[in-house]
Amino acid sequence: MAFTLEEIVRRFGGEVVGNAAQRVVSLAPLDQAGPQQLAFLANPKYLSQVETTAAGAVLIGADDLAKLASRDARNFIVTPNPYAYFARVAQAFIDLAAPKAEPGVHASAHVDPSAQVAATAVIGPNVTVEAGAVIGEHVRLDANVFVGRGTKIAAGSHLYPGVTVYHGCRIGERAIVHSGAVIGSDGFGFAPDFVGEGDARTGSWVKIPQVGGVSIGPDVEIGANTTIDRGAMADTVIDECVKIDNLVQIGHNCRIGAYTVIAGCAGIAGSTTIGRHCMIGGAVGIAGHVTLADYVIVTAQSGVSKSLRKPGMYTSAFPAIEHRDWNRSAALMRNLDKLRDRIKALEAAVAAQPSPGDD
Amino acid sequence: MAFTLEEIVRRFGGEVVGNAAQRVVSLAPLDQAGPQQLAFLANPKYLSQVETTAAGAVLIGADDLAKLASRDARNFIVTPNPYAYFARVAQAFIDLAAPKAEPGVHASAHVDPSAQVAATAVIGPNVTVEAGAVIGEHVRLDANVFVGRGTKIAAGSHLYPGVTVYHGCRIGERAIVHSGAVIGSDGFGFAPDFVGEGDARTGSWVKIPQVGGVSIGPDVEIGANTTIDRGAMADTVIDECVKIDNLVQIGHNCRIGAYTVIAGCAGIAGSTTIGRHCMIGGAVGIAGHVTLADYVIVTAQSGVSKSLRKPGMYTSAFPAIEHRDWNRSAALMRNLDKLRDRIKALEAAVAAQPSPGDD
Amino acid sequence: MAFTLEEIVRRFGGEVVGNAAQRVVSLAPLDQAGPQQLAFLANPKYLSQVETTAAGAVLIGADDLAKLASRDARNFIVTPNPYAYFARVAQAFIDLAAPKAEPGVHASAHVDPSAQVAATAVIGPNVTVEAGAVIGEHVRLDANVFVGRGTKIAAGSHLYPGVTVYHGCRIGERAIVHSGAVIGSDGFGFAPDFVGEGDARTGSWVKIPQVGGVSIGPDVEIGANTTIDRGAMADTVIDECVKIDNLVQIGHNCRIGAYTVIAGCAGIAGSTTIGRHCMIGGAVGIAGHVTLADYVIVTAQSGVSKSLRKPGMYTSAFPAIEHRDWNRSAALMRNLDKLRDRIKALEAAVAAQPSPGDD
Repeated sequence: MAFTLEEIVRRFGGEVVGNAAQRVVSLAPLDQAGPQQLAFLANPKYLSQVETTAAGAVLIGADDLAKLASRDARNFIVTPNPYAYFARVAQAFIDLAAPKAEPGVHASAHVDPSAQVAATAVIGPNVTVEAGAVIGEHVRLDANVFVGRGTKIAAGSHLYPGVTVYHGCRIGERAIVHSGAVIGSDGFGFAPDFVGEGDARTGSWVKIPQVGGVSIGPDVEIGANTTIDRGAMADTVIDECVKIDNLVQIGHNCRIGAYTVIAGCAGIAGSTTIGRHCMIGGAVGIAGHVTLADYVIVTAQSGVSKSLRKPGMYTSAFPAIEHRDWNRSAALMRNLDKLRDRIKALEAAVAAQPSPGDD
Repeated sequence: MAFTLEEIVRRFGGEVVGNAAQRVVSLAPLDQAGPQQLAFLANPKYLSQVETTAAGAVLIGADDLAKLASRDARNFIVTPNPYAYFARVAQAFIDLAAPKAEPGVHASAHVDPSAQVAATAVIGPNVTVEAGAVIGEHVRLDANVFVGRGTKIAAGSHLYPGVTVYHGCRIGERAIVHSGAVIGSDGFGFAPDFVGEGDARTGSWVKIPQVGGVSIGPDVEIGANTTIDRGAMADTVIDECVKIDNLVQIGHNCRIGAYTVIAGCAGIAGSTTIGRHCMIGGAVGIAGHVTLADYVIVTAQSGVSKSLRKPGMYTSAFPAIEHRDWNRSAALMRNLDKLRDRIKALEAAVAAQPSPGDD
Repeated sequence: MAFTLEEIVRRFGGEVVGNAAQRVVSLAPLDQAGPQQLAFLANPKYLSQVETTAAGAVLIGADDLAKLASRDARNFIVTPNPYAYFARVAQAFIDLAAPKAEPGVHASAHVDPSAQVAATAVIGPNVTVEAGAVIGEHVRLDANVFVGRGTKIAAGSHLYPGVTVYHGCRIGERAIVHSGAVIGSDGFGFAPDFVGEGDARTGSWVKIPQVGGVSIGPDVEIGANTTIDRGAMADTVIDECVKIDNLVQIGHNCRIGAYTVIAGCAGIAGSTTIGRHCMIGGAVGIAGHVTLADYVIVTAQSGVSKSLRKPGMYTSAFPAIEHRDWNRSAALMRNLDKLRDRIKALEAAVAAQPSPGDD
């Protein structure tokens, strides 16, 4: 469970400066790393730590390496993106250390005879796979996962314990879905069928059947207890490499563009389209039937009620201040029209004054 | 799997105009429907699509039908509420197409001998039904559902995979509960039992036992991963035909009035009463111990901290604007008292001026 | 299933005033209690109810007892904190009444041979306990609970149905974790590895492996469907006696100080430290990498974007008002800079006026 620097660059790219035969056994921050550990410099403000680290080697950009006073007796892997490189190497160490799950279907799992399960898939305890479902190569379904009829889980995906995917959905290659996530629940749609007003109102809500599915692209990650509703007629669509945090709600018939990231507790109402490479902050709320352009950033806790057609950063949240100060300003805010009226009255009064040069 | 228009009106009401023997096999939007499909006109602005649709028949209101230039060679079902009618017919097609679950208890389910399970109920894999629970006719409990001791699930309800209902709760007829929903978890109540202040504080929080239940009326729908806490002494109550979206939190001893709809990510603190026919927007927060009248609408992301005694629409959320513009206004907002003081000073200065007619 | 007042004070402290042999069989509010019930006075404004209650005994503070016009023929337990005392006695009655779960492992549970399960633990149906996990004395794991490899659940804890705890986590003594909670899911961390801008952008997000765990202290309660992410390198830490409501998100590497309470729907981004004895209101959002001092209170729906270094109450939320009024003020709010400019112009105009005494 060790790699030489040469082995690392052969697999992940970059260039060794120093001793390519140096072995590393794990990763650590610059200020904590020892002689068998690999550290990384992602932020130039920690450059001085590179001078003093005991790390066996440091991942570094060429520019930062050039700034070092001395590189003697030190080893580096030079790469344009040390942070991403670090992430990839760290994953390799984890894959080495993690216990290998045996392919096969646990005796307590319920797999319908008409479902297709790849021989390399790992199906855990109490998993249910319904009729016609397709489970790809190397897929891992942990304990208590439910896969509804006709749903397809593509190769290399990992569904953690207790994930539920309703019928008629598709999950792309290498997806990671965390526990408690629910994919394909009914969208929230009801036709009002009421007659009369007030206490005399009669009638009811009529459920709109939700017959679309959810279609999720490759390399998507979905957080714990996140919910993604199935579409009403067509599918709800999550494009490739979208990353979604915990407790996020995505309504029916949304489309989330590739590479977009959505932080925890955000909620996106139905039929909304979000572009590619967007960043949606934590607890952001986005109304239904709006469109966000590519490269839109919405800061945490903001609310989007209309389409945002231009890339850029959007905000509507206030930071908390001391309660008493806030309340004073909030009271004035609710009466801004009165302040404006007083300004208007002043403007009229001043306009009616003889000007200084009138005499 | 086809209906004639005559069969449809016999079941759902309305009146055929045109060929009552016309058969339809599915539903589709006006602009996509073919000659064996049923479309609907809910919004008069799409009236022109009725003139050109290839649909085998169109659901339409009498007023809209009267506006058509020509109805020759076309078939209609005339109904006061085409959208609700569409929903009902769509559901009928789905019921025809869906695989029928066999009544009975799956071999892997754990049903306590003292529980009562109707012969027509469908109990899926790994379901647990505890002592004294009652499962009504045609109830469907999907994989991994948990029903606690003494809980009653009335006829026709469907609990999707992974729903948990604690002990001592009641769910009415024809409820739909989506995956991951938790009903009957403990309300959040603790008595402070601390002595001293600051670093010298000792003591602890003492849990208030939650011995009420949750009582849910008929025709309620509850979204994925929504949580409804049990009451402290009396029950938390959800009245008939309430519709609740995903990731909603309802605190202990709340009462939600009939026909009210609550959108995703909303949170309602304990002991709050919401009237009938209310509409609570997405991510709305409602404080504890307040009362909302019937027919109150709270728009998305707003916060309710006091009772709202009159029907109507209430709001406290801002729409996101460009980050820089927002920050400029937000800074002024935090200093509104200074703007007001400047206005006051101006008013005093202007009042001290001789008026134009003073000379 | 009855206690005499003498038995109660022997167990919970306090002093009987009146008949120590009086038996009580349950608890009830002052205005509903009968002669075999114990009531409590926590709020002095209900003192008059003590004069008229039919309760067999009343929990009361010494100060309030002294204010009573008459205490003849009545029984009291005098205690400094009647509400906390009530909670403890109520719990004792519940423990008496609740069916006792038999220690042991349900036949359908999957416990890895290398896991240690105490003989007094209760392991329910379909529970999975992975390799190397440790389940303490009197722990209760309800149906469908998942405990990952190497995770430790300390004595007396109760995990309700469907709780998931990933590998490598620790839960302290007497924890209560409600259904659907997910502990130890991956933190939300990705290194951007993109080249180029706009439509020409290529590359991807690289997942940062999350190799820390979650460490939870004793006497913690965690609400339904709450999520607590594992740390990236070090652990996410929840200190003793923290109380967390439903649908709360806690990001990776957060530390929540002892006795802090967090209400429903709150979200705390990664690497944030919250002090001891804080109160975080419902739906509050707290940014990542900030620090809250001990005894900080954040009111419901507020947003915290910077560290709050002083104890006290902080706010940034508005209460909902009528929609039309709100919209008028909100429009002015977005143009506060224009109001300010008009004030500036007025100030200049007034300054240019001859002062009243200039003549």
